[in-house]
Amino acid sequence: MANNQQRHQQRQQRLKESVDAKVEKASEERGIVLVLTGNGKGKSSSAYGCAVRAVGHGQHVKVAQFIKGTWDCGERNILEQHGVEFAVMATGFTWDTQDKQADIDAAERVWQQTLPWFSDPSIDLIVLDELTYMLSYHYLPVEEVVNAIQSRPKEQSVIVTGRACHRAVLEIADTVSEVKSVKHAFESGIKARKGIDW
Amino acid sequence: MANNQQRHQQRQQRLKESVDAKVEKASEERGIVLVLTGNGKGKSSSAYGCAVRAVGHGQHVKVAQFIKGTWDCGERNILEQHGVEFAVMATGFTWDTQDKQADIDAAERVWQQTLPWFSDPSIDLIVLDELTYMLSYHYLPVEEVVNAIQSRPKEQSVIVTGRACHRAVLEIADTVSEVKSVKHAFESGIKARKGIDW
Repeated sequence: MANNQQRHQQRQQRLKESVDAKVEKASEERGIVLVLTGNGKGKSSSAYGCAVRAVGHGQHVKVAQFIKGTWDCGERNILEQHGVEFAVMATGFTWDTQDKQADIDAAERVWQQTLPWFSDPSIDLIVLDELTYMLSYHYLPVEEVVNAIQSRPKEQSVIVTGRACHRAVLEIADTVSEVKSVKHAFESGIKARKGIDW
Repeated sequence: MANNQQRHQQRQQRLKESVDAKVEKASEERGIVLVLTGNGKGKSSSAYGCAVRAVGHGQHVKVAQFIKGTWDCGERNILEQHGVEFAVMATGFTWDTQDKQADIDAAERVWQQTLPWFSDPSIDLIVLDELTYMLSYHYLPVEEVVNAIQSRPKEQSVIVTGRACHRAVLEIADTVSEVKSVKHAFESGIKARKGIDW
């Protein structure tokens, strides 16, 4: 038993040293570009979780919601109470509108609203929720989006969410997580749920 | 151009029909078990994003934080303001404490605090943040955890986060997302960041 405890301590000590060494090496301090992509559940909620984190530290956060925006949105209800400004397309899913030009115009309007954020050093975090679809549908010019993100103030972080993220955005990202769907309640007949899915 | 617009409308119409059919089929209404696992960034923040969503709809949410709890936590600052109760281990990472029995006791204390939640139908959502490590380290008995989750009220949802989730928990989950790390800022020398990483 004493031996077990000793082995556990030694193992944990090695783990601690390895983590400490990595932490020491990671010394560059600047805002990052975080991409949450893949076909699984959790990309947008992860972005809103970070937004809450940032707000909880007194940081200044802005959110652009592409695609979403027509229904009651739990995270928006709370974040707006804490001073987070939302720019929303509010056109519903594109497969409901079936009007390409109206969608492009709406995407462009949201994008024009977000552009000044990338030159405002008082903003700590910008969430571009579901941006990837705007790029894969060619609703927004990818070079312009990449340039805006790259020209941002040093301390500012940007989170991009959505499936099938454009290569050019992946390239400028510091952290990329691919959220893979192993299984999904929806596929086994369970209805999308308030507080979980929206 | 008119043809292009027509093709776009037809494509979107088919997409809409396929989505509508799936939505109609998904008619079962109940709380789900959502597991966020894998080695990538975004698991806990996704759980907190859902917690914010739920709170934003006036739902009743509880959070158990395993491992975490010793440092300033942005999401906790906000969620507690909205009536979310946190049960925290507050022992720091285990590789800092190096005392196995103290860790087990702390895990057990948090677990005893969360147990009554699984028989309280007024609770809509329970977040078990970093629970997976408690199971892989054998700090908590997996059968007891699985039984508690399965005996919960029908409308209650549970979110479990952490790497390498135990098979028995994956089996009772309705939705499982595996968050894979494609790249991570930390690995290229960028320091963990307030508002992003905690």
